[in-house]
Amino acid sequence: MSTSAQIGVTGLAVMGRNLARNFARNGYAVAVHNRTASKTRELMDEFGQEGDFVAAESAEDFVAALERPRRLVVMVKAGDPTDAVIREFAPLLEHGDVIIDGGNAHFADTRRRERELREHGIHFVGTGISGGEEGALHGPSIMPGGSDESYASLGPMLEKISAKAADGAPCVTHVGPDGAGHFVKMVHNGIEYADMQLIAEAYHLLREVAGFSPARIAEIFRTWNTGRLDSYLIEITAEVLSHVDAATGEPFVDVVADQAEQKGTGRWTVQIALELGLPVSGIAEAVFARSLSGHTALRAASRGLAGPTPAPLGESEAAAFADQVEQALYASKIVSYTQGFHEIATGSAEYGWNIDLGAVAAIWRAGCIIRAAFLDRVRAAYDARPDLPSLLSDEAFAREIAAAQDDWRAVLVAATRQGVPTPGFSAALTYYDTLRADRLPAALTQGQRDYFGAHTYRRTDREGVFHTLWSGDRSEVPV
Amino acid sequence: MSTSAQIGVTGLAVMGRNLARNFARNGYAVAVHNRTASKTRELMDEFGQEGDFVAAESAEDFVAALERPRRLVVMVKAGDPTDAVIREFAPLLEHGDVIIDGGNAHFADTRRRERELREHGIHFVGTGISGGEEGALHGPSIMPGGSDESYASLGPMLEKISAKAADGAPCVTHVGPDGAGHFVKMVHNGIEYADMQLIAEAYHLLREVAGFSPARIAEIFRTWNTGRLDSYLIEITAEVLSHVDAATGEPFVDVVADQAEQKGTGRWTVQIALELGLPVSGIAEAVFARSLSGHTALRAASRGLAGPTPAPLGESEAAAFADQVEQALYASKIVSYTQGFHEIATGSAEYGWNIDLGAVAAIWRAGCIIRAAFLDRVRAAYDARPDLPSLLSDEAFAREIAAAQDDWRAVLVAATRQGVPTPGFSAALTYYDTLRADRLPAALTQGQRDYFGAHTYRRTDREGVFHTLWSGDRSEVPV
Repeated sequence: MSTSAQIGVTGLAVMGRNLARNFARNGYAVAVHNRTASKTRELMDEFGQEGDFVAAESAEDFVAALERPRRLVVMVKAGDPTDAVIREFAPLLEHGDVIIDGGNAHFADTRRRERELREHGIHFVGTGISGGEEGALHGPSIMPGGSDESYASLGPMLEKISAKAADGAPCVTHVGPDGAGHFVKMVHNGIEYADMQLIAEAYHLLREVAGFSPARIAEIFRTWNTGRLDSYLIEITAEVLSHVDAATGEPFVDVVADQAEQKGTGRWTVQIALELGLPVSGIAEAVFARSLSGHTALRAASRGLAGPTPAPLGESEAAAFADQVEQALYASKIVSYTQGFHEIATGSAEYGWNIDLGAVAAIWRAGCIIRAAFLDRVRAAYDARPDLPSLLSDEAFAREIAAAQDDWRAVLVAATRQGVPTPGFSAALTYYDTLRADRLPAALTQGQRDYFGAHTYRRTDREGVFHTLWSGDRSEVPV
Repeated sequence: MSTSAQIGVTGLAVMGRNLARNFARNGYAVAVHNRTASKTRELMDEFGQEGDFVAAESAEDFVAALERPRRLVVMVKAGDPTDAVIREFAPLLEHGDVIIDGGNAHFADTRRRERELREHGIHFVGTGISGGEEGALHGPSIMPGGSDESYASLGPMLEKISAKAADGAPCVTHVGPDGAGHFVKMVHNGIEYADMQLIAEAYHLLREVAGFSPARIAEIFRTWNTGRLDSYLIEITAEVLSHVDAATGEPFVDVVADQAEQKGTGRWTVQIALELGLPVSGIAEAVFARSLSGHTALRAASRGLAGPTPAPLGESEAAAFADQVEQALYASKIVSYTQGFHEIATGSAEYGWNIDLGAVAAIWRAGCIIRAAFLDRVRAAYDARPDLPSLLSDEAFAREIAAAQDDWRAVLVAATRQGVPTPGFSAALTYYDTLRADRLPAALTQGQRDYFGAHTYRRTDREGVFHTLWSGDRSEVPV
């Protein structure tokens, strides 16, 4: 047994345990520690033979087992528990040591912790880790923030345990300083919400408008997964839709309660976007759709509200409609990623992170929940033009949306007429149509604001700020 | 000159000055104070003859001029300036005195300040005041929070200076304890954002799809203002649209830059809703529409994106379309208010405020920016059934939406086909269609979450929490 572990993991719930095993399987000596020691013993009993583990009962033993500079991965619940662990370990560490927080922390907390620990000479690396339990074990997508110095020491290890893209590139990059990694992980999760909502709407339309069974829809998703929509989420959608509930013999999706749950990161993505003045309507509608589904009393009280009853299409129309839904889903997906990458670019500028958007797309190609062939295209767009104003400004994506838009609109017309809710598809299209508009009615909004609150306005034909004397002679005065 | 003022106003920018004048005009002796004394002298020079003012140069003079219990209205910029004023005055006050904050404070700050001052025996009344400069002077809608005791002392004065509804009722009510008043004012502003966005979309559709001129559209809004849409915002929309720019001879709305600005409260309404797990998609889309309009570089980069060019309708079709837009606007407005009142009800439950929703609707009937005939109907709905799950559960509103929905859908179909962005109308309809759905695809979302993250799900046919062994034999296990 080594007494000089190259890395340590404290917090041995399933994510921490699997990450520790991943390090060990890749040849690293791993110190493991948990607040309640029984978890540590469990890991040793079950998986101790997989590699070079050093079990530590106390915080002091844990720190003593690590080679210098020490690298401690903290895998506890985000929030107060993270601060508690830092308070426990920081006094035991020395100048140059590195604490890695692999939880879903809010990036503002990460910025605070990084600043506080930096004053003591300790590196703090807030790190997004995506891929769930399986990813943690077999190779996640890893999004570390923190200092250059810490990445020099840590990067090679993370590259080793990370997922590998189809071209062999490890799915990890030094995202940027302090909170950059957790910020990018937050937006990853926001995009994940949007992706899942768009898939849910596509399924709903194929079910209600096309009249297809879940099994048939699973086949359609399988076909889509061989094309430009090729992705983990499309793949597992087919798996879920083709699954039959053993107890009832019904399609699994029909016996699951239709109330979706949400955790912090989707919500944060929207809250931070609002703070930064960014429109992320697709992600917001996805969060709202989940929360609305869970308002069961409100839904029960609304059951009798008037609306059309969808009349399923005939077979050939239905097949054509499925192709249109694929176009709508793809176009809406481009818009979601446009909004998400806009948020990353804006956060990067706001906090001085200098994030390489192409590199972010590249490390999402494998390991994480939104992994998709599509991300190779996103990477190519940003690699070709790092200052791309938005994904929609990329010629290839613009061309694809141009080709998709008639079908996209047709799908929304059908949904609107038949009363099938498509908040994500609709938000994506209105974002697109807003962006490309020559003139927006925001001019009227500015006129109203000037009328009731003297909030002033600008003009299209000359510089300056103006106010109209609405309750006077309605002349215009410069402000 | 009185040396015993019944109320004091500190912060004499236009809102504070007008509020002080309003008190004076209603027969109260008003002490006035400002950090820079020149503002105080200006008020005295210009308006001193309007009533019984006591000009105070110092904080000590100001406090000394007030009768006990003292009532100090603070009219400074929300945020740090409010705290600074409190720090300055609190040490000069005595048990039972009342500080009234009339700014647009965040309700969480109001809760904190109320708690801190309560420990010193001082009442803190966070108060929403809506109606702009004119309202402050001639009668605003007033939304005070704070203790019952403070309202007993303050209420009669606020009733006197407030706007009066058509039935003579003063537009003020004791909303609830601590931050309740500022919370309700925040949601008022969120609804205002949504109202303005819906009006902007109606205008945009009448311009682009119907092909009407701004002057013609002003006439349409004037007609609408005689019906169920009768409201201040519809009224001023007609004024703004009929205004002609003197410099160019063009419609005013065509020379105003189409970049709308936003302040804190609209954004807060959405951020807090996210915190509370509430879908407020209509308000969110309104905030996003404003922010997107201001992203000029992004818009410029998106000008060439493909889309249909609206082909204006013929005269008789256009007139019929205008009627449909009225239906869509009204139905979407009901949804906005549904979402806003849902947020107030949820905030009230969360913070133990016991807010009377009918009373809130009643005090918005005059004085404030969203004042509307419609609010009489909202009040009636909540008065008839205080525990109404949502406005859509009110029979009268449900009946109106049922009558409107074909036209609502037709308008969205036209907008979708012709590429006119309608984020507010669309969000409202998808919210409505989501609420009334028997089954939502959230079941698929739950299946996906269980697949990739073992997040578990509930079933429709029996109690409990379950997980499917997706990477095993796909049997189901209770959790």
